Amino acid sequence: MTRIRVHGTEREIDPAGEFAAWLDPSRTAIVSIDMHEGHLSDDPACPCPAPRGREIVAGIDAFHREARALGVRVLHVRSTLRASGVDDVGGTSGSAWRVTFPQHVGPIPGADEHALAGSRWTEFVTEVLPGDEVVSGKKRLSAFYPTDLDFLLRQLGVTAVVLDGIMADCCVLNSAFDASNLGYRVSVPSDLVRGTDAGLEEAALSMISLHLGLVLPSSELLEAWRRCA
Amino acid sequence: MTRIRVHGTEREIDPAGEFAAWLDPSRTAIVSIDMHEGHLSDDPACPCPAPRGREIVAGIDAFHREARALGVRVLHVRSTLRASGVDDVGGTSGSAWRVTFPQHVGPIPGADEHALAGSRWTEFVTEVLPGDEVVSGKKRLSAFYPTDLDFLLRQLGVTAVVLDGIMADCCVLNSAFDASNLGYRVSVPSDLVRGTDAGLEEAALSMISLHLGLVLPSSELLEAWRRCA
Amino acid sequence: MTRIRVHGTEREIDPAGEFAAWLDPSRTAIVSIDMHEGHLSDDPACPCPAPRGREIVAGIDAFHREARALGVRVLHVRSTLRASGVDDVGGTSGSAWRVTFPQHVGPIPGADEHALAGSRWTEFVTEVLPGDEVVSGKKRLSAFYPTDLDFLLRQLGVTAVVLDGIMADCCVLNSAFDASNLGYRVSVPSDLVRGTDAGLEEAALSMISLHLGLVLPSSELLEAWRRCA
Amino acid sequence: MTRIRVHGTEREIDPAGEFAAWLDPSRTAIVSIDMHEGHLSDDPACPCPAPRGREIVAGIDAFHREARALGVRVLHVRSTLRASGVDDVGGTSGSAWRVTFPQHVGPIPGADEHALAGSRWTEFVTEVLPGDEVVSGKKRLSAFYPTDLDFLLRQLGVTAVVLDGIMADCCVLNSAFDASNLGYRVSVPSDLVRGTDAGLEEAALSMISLHLGLVLPSSELLEAWRRCA
Repeated sequence: MTRIRVHGTEREIDPAGEFAAWLDPSRTAIVSIDMHEGHLSDDPACPCPAPRGREIVAGIDAFHREARALGVRVLHVRSTLRASGVDDVGGTSGSAWRVTFPQHVGPIPGADEHALAGSRWTEFVTEVLPGDEVVSGKKRLSAFYPTDLDFLLRQLGVTAVVLDGIMADCCVLNSAFDASNLGYRVSVPSDLVRGTDAGLEEAALSMISLHLGLVLPSSELLEAWRRCA
Repeated sequence: MTRIRVHGTEREIDPAGEFAAWLDPSRTAIVSIDMHEGHLSDDPACPCPAPRGREIVAGIDAFHREARALGVRVLHVRSTLRASGVDDVGGTSGSAWRVTFPQHVGPIPGADEHALAGSRWTEFVTEVLPGDEVVSGKKRLSAFYPTDLDFLLRQLGVTAVVLDGIMADCCVLNSAFDASNLGYRVSVPSDLVRGTDAGLEEAALSMISLHLGLVLPSSELLEAWRRCA
Repeated sequence: MTRIRVHGTEREIDPAGEFAAWLDPSRTAIVSIDMHEGHLSDDPACPCPAPRGREIVAGIDAFHREARALGVRVLHVRSTLRASGVDDVGGTSGSAWRVTFPQHVGPIPGADEHALAGSRWTEFVTEVLPGDEVVSGKKRLSAFYPTDLDFLLRQLGVTAVVLDGIMADCCVLNSAFDASNLGYRVSVPSDLVRGTDAGLEEAALSMISLHLGLVLPSSELLEAWRRCA
Repeated sequence: MTRIRVHGTEREIDPAGEFAAWLDPSRTAIVSIDMHEGHLSDDPACPCPAPRGREIVAGIDAFHREARALGVRVLHVRSTLRASGVDDVGGTSGSAWRVTFPQHVGPIPGADEHALAGSRWTEFVTEVLPGDEVVSGKKRLSAFYPTDLDFLLRQLGVTAVVLDGIMADCCVLNSAFDASNLGYRVSVPSDLVRGTDAGLEEAALSMISLHLGLVLPSSELLEAWRRCA
């Protein structure tokens, strides 16, 4: 049996039962979201700080290593904006978080440098190894728009995705919605995502577990994959 | 000033300030999501019950009436699946909620009838008046995919959307993400959405307020629009 | 061997060779494009006349009958615009053909009625049988945008499409490009499409044969499918 | 008056008339398609030769210089595939042209190297200047899928596009269809595109002129823009 969490309550499911399509390692890719310097640096100039994300760097790297050994593909998604700024602050409709998030955390001094192509902020903090693939066009909250992630997943023959990274209550959750709408089976390892705060993190996991797919410890995912291998 | 709610805290903003693009009635449409019998009926056969949604039918109708009088367009989005079932239970990848949600609420007996074209479940409970438009192709959680809502909003010259309806923590939240990613300015009237439960409803509004746009009472929206008119 | 036409020259291919994915009936759907009254009626009020299309109505019906018997799905795509006109002449950016095509054929008196929901112009001229599916949201030239055709094909598990209908040099060709870009294998039966005139029809088939897929008589397609069945 | 070509016939239009939205330089961007070494190199190893394209390099550079001086933005679209090959020959559904085009021109020895990231084949032959923007994700025939071109055009506030480059009867024509379906007004300078051969080039221009937008000499476009400036 596989232990999952449904809206905060622990349950057990049969991994060969109605969630089998969620747990088939041969049709699964891990999509690791926004684990780059622009969110994770502890430099005060960090343009879009998600400091809780630093807690999961080592855990994500370890999870990816185990997954690769089981034949599961690892994809890394990265926010990248054209250096001119036209994709965001210099265009007709900039990112909404630039005005909404400061209502909660106060001014973000380096925000205009966020994700600019060629800057150090787009460097990954997690390990990117040969055999992994990178999706570089993320420009808003979803990993799917306006990127080629769906195209890449189709080319890989993937029908299930596992989302890790940051932030649980925006980019991870948004990507989980998109993946599910597009027909992919979605799982999220509860120990390998972080949100704005613990409360919203938990709420995002509840929403995913109720509407989209499986929320479970990464160790349970690995265990389920090993049984299939 | 306009009163908004940011992650549960009340704040005031200048409606002519950095949120002006969110509050321009001449470029705004209301997108009312899934207010149909398939979610709102109190018949035990209701295929996808969202009973909290019944509380806001009268409020939504009143809000739409005031909005129309101010020249704001009202669009109604409706889930509709081909009668053969191929869009969901009869296809290669059915809706995830059919297996995830019952983990929380138990079996949903009528679920297979949900949103089938030609059934009574697709009838709107809220008022749809001449001059409104209907978007009928919703098949998963987002109002945008695979529908023509983005196409319609572009044809209307709309740059801001107000989302009301159900459910706050899935279809409304997913549509808010999509709308914002596509460049629309998003507002959600806190009194005119309902979620799975009060906690997830509140969490969804927090996420919207932090990452996407304005969360505020419908009366504040109407007030801001009147000032512009 | 299967006879195909490549840029006007007849060739033979091995149906089990590099084009095998194009010719597998178990993964194929026929997408029949715009065979409705709005293009085919001989009424002088016909809003968007494609008179050459009348020549292929009987041939398409016969082809679909044989295909269904071999287990190939038949989908019918239909242009439909909201009755208010907002999707086209009443919106911010109407269909380009409304100003370009009259440069060639002169004024088209009924054009404003084209494809309006609820009008007789959206009625199919070809046979639509139980077991077929209908895609009703076509609003511009492609059968894929802004419709749910890609969604439907995925739900059907389809990886190859056969396009018939009108017009070879606009909606059929545009849909062939989109289908191929999306990863579907595209074939076009040369006897079951018609264009603006014989020259553009032939040119469209040449483009399809060079860049997208197989152009061949419908009898050859049926023959190849029978061999697989 | 502005001279245009409609299905091979010369006509004159009033640039301030029904085509005014096609000819407004303040809302226009040039989208230059695939003018890179992978198509234009005269090296025998050239992976996807489009030799007719070499004739227009100087003309495109001159046109872009004049356009920039009039304030029209220049965007360069480039085919780029991940170095691993997964986007095409190494994925579930490779580009169709790899099997169709050789039916006409014979084997293409270097085809597997086409557009690989990091190779010399992705270098532009035309001038790319500061202030221009680059769209690098083209992977099939359209400049729009799976790229962020539509996103970029929206951010630029663009409502009209001018397409130049190669090849007239596939990538340029496909992009013209997509642009028009998405609501952009499309023009193509007849002297600054090249196709598979002269016949298909002419046919592609006829299709564009009948269904999508304006086909005219680049000098006429510049002249129309100068009148507006």
